Amino acid sequence: MSEPAYAIGVDFGTESGRVVLLDLEQAQDVATSVLRYPSAVIDQKLPSTGERLPHDYALQDPDDWLRVLERGIPEVLKESRVDAAQVVGLGIDFTSCTVLPTTGDGTALCTLEQWRERKQAWPKLWKHHAAQPVADRLNEVALERGEDFLARYGGRISSEWYFPKLIEVWLEDREVYDAADRYIEATDWIVWWLTGAECRQTATAGFKAMWSPEEGLPPTDYFTSAYPGFDKPGEKLGENFVPLGSRAGTLRAEVAKKLKLSESTAVAVGNVDAWVSLPGVGVEDPGTYVIVIGTSICDMIVHPEETRLPGITGVVKDGILPGMYGYEAGQAAVGDMLAWFVEKLAQDPDSYGQLEKAAARLAPGETGLVALDWWNGNRTILADADLTGAIFGLTLQTTRAEIYRALLESIAFGSRRIMDNFEEHGLVLSEIVACGGIAERSPLMMQLLADTSGRPVHVPEVNEIPARGAALFGAVAAGVFDDIRSAIEATRPKKVRTYEPDLEAKKTYDRVYEIYRTLYEFLGRSDARLLHELKWIGTERRGS
Amino acid sequence: MSEPAYAIGVDFGTESGRVVLLDLEQAQDVATSVLRYPSAVIDQKLPSTGERLPHDYALQDPDDWLRVLERGIPEVLKESRVDAAQVVGLGIDFTSCTVLPTTGDGTALCTLEQWRERKQAWPKLWKHHAAQPVADRLNEVALERGEDFLARYGGRISSEWYFPKLIEVWLEDREVYDAADRYIEATDWIVWWLTGAECRQTATAGFKAMWSPEEGLPPTDYFTSAYPGFDKPGEKLGENFVPLGSRAGTLRAEVAKKLKLSESTAVAVGNVDAWVSLPGVGVEDPGTYVIVIGTSICDMIVHPEETRLPGITGVVKDGILPGMYGYEAGQAAVGDMLAWFVEKLAQDPDSYGQLEKAAARLAPGETGLVALDWWNGNRTILADADLTGAIFGLTLQTTRAEIYRALLESIAFGSRRIMDNFEEHGLVLSEIVACGGIAERSPLMMQLLADTSGRPVHVPEVNEIPARGAALFGAVAAGVFDDIRSAIEATRPKKVRTYEPDLEAKKTYDRVYEIYRTLYEFLGRSDARLLHELKWIGTERRGS
Repeated sequence: MSEPAYAIGVDFGTESGRVVLLDLEQAQDVATSVLRYPSAVIDQKLPSTGERLPHDYALQDPDDWLRVLERGIPEVLKESRVDAAQVVGLGIDFTSCTVLPTTGDGTALCTLEQWRERKQAWPKLWKHHAAQPVADRLNEVALERGEDFLARYGGRISSEWYFPKLIEVWLEDREVYDAADRYIEATDWIVWWLTGAECRQTATAGFKAMWSPEEGLPPTDYFTSAYPGFDKPGEKLGENFVPLGSRAGTLRAEVAKKLKLSESTAVAVGNVDAWVSLPGVGVEDPGTYVIVIGTSICDMIVHPEETRLPGITGVVKDGILPGMYGYEAGQAAVGDMLAWFVEKLAQDPDSYGQLEKAAARLAPGETGLVALDWWNGNRTILADADLTGAIFGLTLQTTRAEIYRALLESIAFGSRRIMDNFEEHGLVLSEIVACGGIAERSPLMMQLLADTSGRPVHVPEVNEIPARGAALFGAVAAGVFDDIRSAIEATRPKKVRTYEPDLEAKKTYDRVYEIYRTLYEFLGRSDARLLHELKWIGTERRGS
Repeated sequence: MSEPAYAIGVDFGTESGRVVLLDLEQAQDVATSVLRYPSAVIDQKLPSTGERLPHDYALQDPDDWLRVLERGIPEVLKESRVDAAQVVGLGIDFTSCTVLPTTGDGTALCTLEQWRERKQAWPKLWKHHAAQPVADRLNEVALERGEDFLARYGGRISSEWYFPKLIEVWLEDREVYDAADRYIEATDWIVWWLTGAECRQTATAGFKAMWSPEEGLPPTDYFTSAYPGFDKPGEKLGENFVPLGSRAGTLRAEVAKKLKLSESTAVAVGNVDAWVSLPGVGVEDPGTYVIVIGTSICDMIVHPEETRLPGITGVVKDGILPGMYGYEAGQAAVGDMLAWFVEKLAQDPDSYGQLEKAAARLAPGETGLVALDWWNGNRTILADADLTGAIFGLTLQTTRAEIYRALLESIAFGSRRIMDNFEEHGLVLSEIVACGGIAERSPLMMQLLADTSGRPVHVPEVNEIPARGAALFGAVAAGVFDDIRSAIEATRPKKVRTYEPDLEAKKTYDRVYEIYRTLYEFLGRSDARLLHELKWIGTERRGS
C-alpha cells in the first residue's frame, strides 16, 4: 500500500448503528459515529396506524437504517478529515435473521403508501417471536418425515429464522405476501440499496433459511406437508447466493453523493454482526473458540470439515469465514440475567461494580451455590425455550455477592458444557477469544471462563469489533487484501489481555461442574417436564 | 370456683422470658411481663474469662432465668393488683433440650467459683450444635447395632439432645463431668429451684434423652460401644420421672418471699415451650395438627395410640399431653428464611408488609416458581442438616414479590409433605391450628397452608400462648381443674380466625406440589449427595 487506504465498517445493531472508519495500514479505527434508531424496536404500536401490536412482535423501520449510513458516514469523514478517495471499501454487518418484504426493484414494502398500514409489510427484527407456532409446526413435520437437513441445525429450527417469519406473512396477510417480490435479509437489502445489485450471500441462506450449497432448500413437499398451498418455498428467497468475502459491486452514483463517498468505493456482500467478530478480533484458526458475550452469548468456531452434531445452532459451509465450515452455538441469558439480579432482585442498578468486587474476593467453590442459567431458556445444547433458571445451595448465610458470583459461574459452566459438546464430537478447542460488553467490563467473568474450562481466555483490546470486522470485508472487496484470511493476519490486534486458567481453581470447579452437569441433565433432559410444567402453570395462571 | 382464682405461667424463650397472670374464670390474661436475658445467647465469649468460644457453641446464664421470675412475677402482681393469695398455681415452660450440670443440692455448677471458668460447666442452649460429632457417632453405632429405640425418633437422633451434650462434657472436661451430680433439663432445674424438689418429667426424658417408660434408657453396652468408658449413662439423669400434668410441690418459703407469692402456691412439673401451646390454643383432639410457626416450625399431634413412623422428631408417651402419645415434627427454616430474603437479599428490612401485600395479589401458581425450604437443612421428614435451599423457575420477568410468595409456598408445601407422611402412616388430620409470630402476622401464609393442604386453618386470637398453656398446668397442679383436658375445655379460646381452603387454588397447588415432591425426592433423597457435596465444597473452600 503506497497511499494510506481506509475502509468503512457499519454495524447495524438492535437499537443503533455504528460507523467506523478504519486505517488499514495501522489497523486502527480513526473515527466512529453511533446513531440510535429513532423508532428503535417497534413492539408496542405500528407507527403508521397506532395499531397495538400482538405479544412477541418486534419490527423495525428501514428508514432508521438508512439514516445511519446517510448521517454516520459523512460524520466520520468530517471528523477524521480523511479524503473520500482514500476510502476504498465498505462492509456492513446486521442483526440476523432480520427480514423484510420488497418489490422487484428493492423498495421496502412498508415504505409504500399502499402497504404502509399492514404490519406484515414491515421488517421483522431477529427477536420477533410471533412465528413460534410456525416453527413448532415445521419442527414437528421435519421430525415426522425424518428430514435430513435438521441435522445441520442441531436437530431443531428456531422461530427467529427465515421460513417461520415468511410463512407467518403467508398465513396472516396473503396480499402482502403476493405483493412482495422478495423476502430478504436486511443485510442483503442494505447492500442492494448501496450498490443497486441484489446480491445475497450463502451464509444467512445457510444458517437461517435452511439452504445448503449441495442440497438447496428442503424439499417442497416438506413445506406443503406442514402448510398445504405453500408450494413455492424459494420464490421470495431467490436461488443465487455468493459466499462471504465477495464483492457486491460499487456505490450507486446517487448513493455515493449522499454518503459523500467516491463512486468507486467497493462494497462487500452483507454480513452478520456476530460473525464479523472473528475478523474483528483476528481469529481464523479452527482451534479457537470465539465468545461474543453481552446480553446473550454467541459462540463460534470455524473448521475445515463438517461435523454434524446435536445441540448447536447450526453448521454452514462458508458460514462465518469463506472456505471453512462455520459452527454457531450460544447461551440465551447472560448480561440480561445479571441485569435482572441487579435491577429486579437487588433493586440497585448501581451495584454492578460493588458486586463484581465482592464476588471476586470469594474463593472458587466458596459460595456453596450452583445455578442453571436458563432465565431465558437454553439455546444450546438443549434448544429449549421453556426451561427456566434455578439456584441450589441457598442457606441463611448466603449473601448477595455469593449469588452474583454463582450466576457468573453458571454462565461459565454453560459455556464449558457447550465446549464439551464440541469436543465430544471431535472438534478440539485449545483457547478462547472473548469480546463483547461483558468481556470488557467483567475481568471476573473472564477469569471464570478460564478457570472452569482450563483454557486461556484472550480479550483483544480493540474498539468497535463488529464494525472493524465489517470494514475488513470492505477492504477485501476493494482488493487491498487477497482474501479475508490475509486481512485478518495483517490487522490482528496487538494488545490482548490474557486470563490464564488457575489449575487449583480448575480442580475445585471440576467438582462443582460434576454437580452442575447432573442437575443439567436431570432438569434439562430426563425430567425437563418439571420446569416446563411449572412455566406453563405460571403462564396459564397469569392469564386467569 | 367461688373466689376468683389466678395462675401464673412463665415461658422461658431463647432471648427472653415472659410472665403471664391468667384469670382462670375468664380464661383471660390480666398482666404480662417480658424480660430480656442480659446475656441472651452466649456464643462468642465465655462471660467469666472472655475466652473465645468454639464455633457452634450456644450457652446461657442461669441467673438470667431466675431474674425473669424474681422481677417478672412481682411485676404482674403489682400491675394487676391481684392478691398473692388468689394465685393458686404456677407453671413454667422452657426451651428444650437446654441442659446444665448441677451439684446434688441443685446448685448450677457455673455459679460456683471453682467451675465458673470452665465452659463445659455452663448451661447448653437447645441450639448448641458443637456435639454434632457425638450425635453422628451415636447414630452410626445405633444403626450398626440395629437399636430398636431409634424407631421412636424417626430413625435418627439430634445433636441438640441430652446425650450428645452430656457426652461432650464427658469428652471435653472430665473434671466438670465428675463434679456434676446431675445433668438436668433447665425446665426441671427451675422447678427444683422453686420447690426444693427435684422432680423430672417423663416428656423431655422421652423426647430428648432416649428414655421410655417401658424400656428405660438404651442398653449400656450401646453407649460403651460408641464411647468405651461411658458406662453409667443414667447416672446424671436419674431414674424417677413423673408425667406432665403432675404437681411438683409448693414454693419454698425463701422463694415465695422473693416472688411475693404465697407459700401454698402449687407448682406444676416443668414443661417445654412448644408443647404448652396445645393447652394454650385449646387443642386436645387427635385429629388436630398444631403448627407453631415462627423462626422455625414445630408441628405436634396427640393420639391415643403409638405409631412408629419414619421422618418425625419423635413419638413419646405422655410427651405432649398426659394420657396420649405425643408426636413431634418440624421445619428448620421459616421466619429466618423470610428474614434472610428481606434483610440479606433485598436488603430492605422494612419490606415485609409490602412484599406480603404484593405476594397476596398473585394467583396460585402464577409465580412459575417452586422452592425447597431447606435454607437451614430439613428437620422432618428427611432429618438432614446438610441439605440446602433451592429455587426453580426463575426468568427475566421474575419479581421480588414472586420469589417471596414462592418462599411462603415452599413452607406450606413442606408442611403438606409432613402431614402426608403422618396420613400415609394412618394418622388422620382433619384440621390445622396455627400459632406463633407468623400465624399472627401473615394471613397469606395461613391461607397458603389451607390452600395447599385442603384443610381449614384456625388461628386462635389469644395472647402469650405458651405462657397461657404453662399457667393452665399450674392451675391443674393447684387442683382448680381435675386434669389438663378439663382445663383445656374450660379455657378454650373463643375468638378464632379461620382460613378455609379455596378448592380452585387447591387444584392448582396439587399440580405444583407434584413438581415440588419430585424435586424433594430427587434432591432430598435419591441424589441428596448433590447438595451435600455442594455444601461441603463451600465449607472446605471458606476455610482455605
